[in-house]
Amino acid sequence: MLDNPMWLRDNCPCPECRDPRSGQKLFQITDLPDDLAVGTVAERPEEVEVTWFPDGHRSVYRRDWLTAPAPVDHRTEAGKRLWATADLATPPEADWSAYLSVPAERVRVLEAVRRLGFALLRGVPVEEGRVLEVARSFGYVRETNYGRLFDVRVEPAPDNLAFTSRAIAPHTDNPYRDPVPTIQLLHCLTNAAQGGDSGLVDGFHAAALLRAEDPEAFAVLTRTPVPFVYRDARTELTAVKPLIDVDPLGRIREVRFNNRSLGTLRPPGAFYDAYRAFAKVLARPELMLAFRLAPGDCLIFDNTRLLHARTAFEQNGARHLQGAYADLDGLAGTLAVLGRTVALDELEALFTGPGTGDYLGEPVTMAEHMRQAAALAEAAGAPAHLVAAALLHDIGHLEGGAELMSGVDNRHSHTGADVLARWFGPEVTEPVRLHVDAKRYLCAVDPGYRARLSEASEFTLRVQGGPMTGPQAAAFAALPGAADAVAVRRWDDAAKVAGAATPDFAHFRPLLASLLRR
Amino acid sequence: MLDNPMWLRDNCPCPECRDPRSGQKLFQITDLPDDLAVGTVAERPEEVEVTWFPDGHRSVYRRDWLTAPAPVDHRTEAGKRLWATADLATPPEADWSAYLSVPAERVRVLEAVRRLGFALLRGVPVEEGRVLEVARSFGYVRETNYGRLFDVRVEPAPDNLAFTSRAIAPHTDNPYRDPVPTIQLLHCLTNAAQGGDSGLVDGFHAAALLRAEDPEAFAVLTRTPVPFVYRDARTELTAVKPLIDVDPLGRIREVRFNNRSLGTLRPPGAFYDAYRAFAKVLARPELMLAFRLAPGDCLIFDNTRLLHARTAFEQNGARHLQGAYADLDGLAGTLAVLGRTVALDELEALFTGPGTGDYLGEPVTMAEHMRQAAALAEAAGAPAHLVAAALLHDIGHLEGGAELMSGVDNRHSHTGADVLARWFGPEVTEPVRLHVDAKRYLCAVDPGYRARLSEASEFTLRVQGGPMTGPQAAAFAALPGAADAVAVRRWDDAAKVAGAATPDFAHFRPLLASLLRR
Repeated sequence: MLDNPMWLRDNCPCPECRDPRSGQKLFQITDLPDDLAVGTVAERPEEVEVTWFPDGHRSVYRRDWLTAPAPVDHRTEAGKRLWATADLATPPEADWSAYLSVPAERVRVLEAVRRLGFALLRGVPVEEGRVLEVARSFGYVRETNYGRLFDVRVEPAPDNLAFTSRAIAPHTDNPYRDPVPTIQLLHCLTNAAQGGDSGLVDGFHAAALLRAEDPEAFAVLTRTPVPFVYRDARTELTAVKPLIDVDPLGRIREVRFNNRSLGTLRPPGAFYDAYRAFAKVLARPELMLAFRLAPGDCLIFDNTRLLHARTAFEQNGARHLQGAYADLDGLAGTLAVLGRTVALDELEALFTGPGTGDYLGEPVTMAEHMRQAAALAEAAGAPAHLVAAALLHDIGHLEGGAELMSGVDNRHSHTGADVLARWFGPEVTEPVRLHVDAKRYLCAVDPGYRARLSEASEFTLRVQGGPMTGPQAAAFAALPGAADAVAVRRWDDAAKVAGAATPDFAHFRPLLASLLRR
Repeated sequence: MLDNPMWLRDNCPCPECRDPRSGQKLFQITDLPDDLAVGTVAERPEEVEVTWFPDGHRSVYRRDWLTAPAPVDHRTEAGKRLWATADLATPPEADWSAYLSVPAERVRVLEAVRRLGFALLRGVPVEEGRVLEVARSFGYVRETNYGRLFDVRVEPAPDNLAFTSRAIAPHTDNPYRDPVPTIQLLHCLTNAAQGGDSGLVDGFHAAALLRAEDPEAFAVLTRTPVPFVYRDARTELTAVKPLIDVDPLGRIREVRFNNRSLGTLRPPGAFYDAYRAFAKVLARPELMLAFRLAPGDCLIFDNTRLLHARTAFEQNGARHLQGAYADLDGLAGTLAVLGRTVALDELEALFTGPGTGDYLGEPVTMAEHMRQAAALAEAAGAPAHLVAAALLHDIGHLEGGAELMSGVDNRHSHTGADVLARWFGPEVTEPVRLHVDAKRYLCAVDPGYRARLSEASEFTLRVQGGPMTGPQAAAFAALPGAADAVAVRRWDDAAKVAGAATPDFAHFRPLLASLLRR
């Protein structure tokens, strides 16, 4: 990446370039000189320091940041699991009260909306207006001409065919709106009518099938702007969008399909053949997940991807849903923030559960030991990632059991690092991974170190392979995370004081939250 | 268009194919047979009737519908007036109370937001929360993590640089949100600080300049997905979109530009050269409209097009704006519906103003005459467009003055038709245009007709050219609108009864509203 100086400089993480609080950039791209170039480069095990020509600015980049892969764009097909009915062993559903009270359950439901395009909540109280509460549980209600919520039931003088007892074929909602509402909710209050069953079709899957079977039709649909129109006494809306919207890399990003409100194309060109080809794919029975909403069910689905449908029902049958719209960006944001909570809850549960157990015969519990190590790191003014590494360095013991004292190296440092990699970057995981090797290293290079080891630590040293040889120690010292691991090791060794006052896990949550992977 | 049978059939306007109330289609595109073809065609002056193979369905299409041009997509550059500062003699502004009370004034303001990208309302009460009232005057508030409204002022611990006293370079808001809020409002409550001036840049204009000057940079920006990110303690948002989004026809549709929250592109490819080229165009002084918001000012602007900026201000200076987001689709819908009101108000004003004047010496006023003609059409069961044509046939007299009785043919039929073409299609305007010729035609072909003309009508006949010759009459009869014009003419001739009870203009408003051009 050193060959793209503008990119590299634009990503300088220093506090002059980026506001430490908000993470926002503090300069304009035009502030950089036209002749910007990498001046000198200092290579260090874990980072690269660039001094810039001509202005002498210095930027330090972590190596793992420099080589990180491109993140997935979750709004495109790349971030989705496409499905036909047979692929869904159990459609995603959850109980409303569990969803409300258990963050991990809420993550599961919202993740399903993001990956599969929908989820079903059961047991939402059968009361008018509750659909808004469901929407607010993950985002913001999008008000439209239909109101903040709308009633789907038979009306005497319907402005929209949805408000009749007719069958409604698979479609996306509000195609005549731009921006289209990206999430729809339907909460069932009554469904006692003959008929009125529901159906869902994965429009991304259908579009991908079309691309495979009839690439020319797919291409026509991605490049033909189609007008959608809606008009009643108080409303008049038009939006012009292709039926299949792809991102600049050609990945499916949005499907819009609604024959009821498709307007007049001028000129139609090759559109109609492609449109019918796509409609025929969408109509395949194996693509339609059919089910019946019961009172208290609330369906949440991605209106840029899933088509929804209902069968006809008796004109006088009792069927009443309440609907609302919301947006995917709010849902994704809620999911990201909930992910932080869930991660920290899982870690805290290790401290308050298995962590209360004996620490290899030391006079502290494992949780006390780890909290003491973190407190020592904090007192030493260590950067956040090392405080976190000190706090979490023995997490592998809590997950992996206590075979170590029975003479088996359970490689708890590696187990711990691998567990932590779900949530943290290498700046946290690598010192954890190396903290056992750091002991073996210190025994080799620091003459007084081994003598100061506790009895248990001396015992485990032998299980873990004993002091390093000279060449082993040299190889270790050259590793990117060696210095951090040695620092963590020294706090580790000192954190065995019976009865010492240490902050509880909650004290470290904000620091951990700031380090969680995005 | 007969060569595209699927298109033609999909647009069949009959009540079996299209719900008369909602205008929504009642069939699926897959319901049409694969071997659908035009069977027989019956050509009539104003319409074409198609009988379809193989199902025998019959569709009647108006000729003017068949040949109508493609409508403009107002969300693309095709529907905009692009501007540099020098192009704006007077930036669009209006007084809040006039905006509220006068529909035409509201149309002017909203039309400016649509065409130019912004408008400024003056005199909005300097009270917290009023910005929401402005948003609701044309659409729906889009709630975000910043709330339904947000305060732009110096905060002690700002999550966003907007809430500091720093200068903010031209940018679009919330680029890390998808769907992005398409309209932003900023209502000034206090602006007593040194500095804190505002600026607007037309991002579509800048993009068009880039396309002209550096087409390769433009192309790179339209095809590079760019991640935008925002993260604070309660929020985490990412959106991936190109800086310049074009529709499938390559027309500029959306600009997203915000250096503060531009994330890390992997790999950056050719992006940075193009990005800097665009940034330099955007920074040209002649593109920035600079002004200062005063208390009571509320700026409304298109956040998919205009970049906004502010200069730095004193840290302790009193500057307080309240902002809110809304969406362009709601604004366009309000504009369309207001357009109906404004059109009908303008027409009604002609009836209640100049229409109360003498009608060429007849025993009725012009307005009475026209209302009587419409009432006769209605009583005869005429279709809506002919009732409207009867009601409006002499509108050219009201607009054009009364030169006719002084012996000058003021061609009021043409004047009237041209005025009406702003609002109505040819089914209304053409009978109006031809209603004078219809008199000359009837004099030629209906022996008793001329004798029944009123004295004034006999006089004007001569000014208008007298009875048609045989060949003139034959040519007239072949015109598409001839039959309708003759019908209107007969109601016109009969609508001169002193003191006859006739419905007032308001009676005809719903009928007229249903005929207004979309």
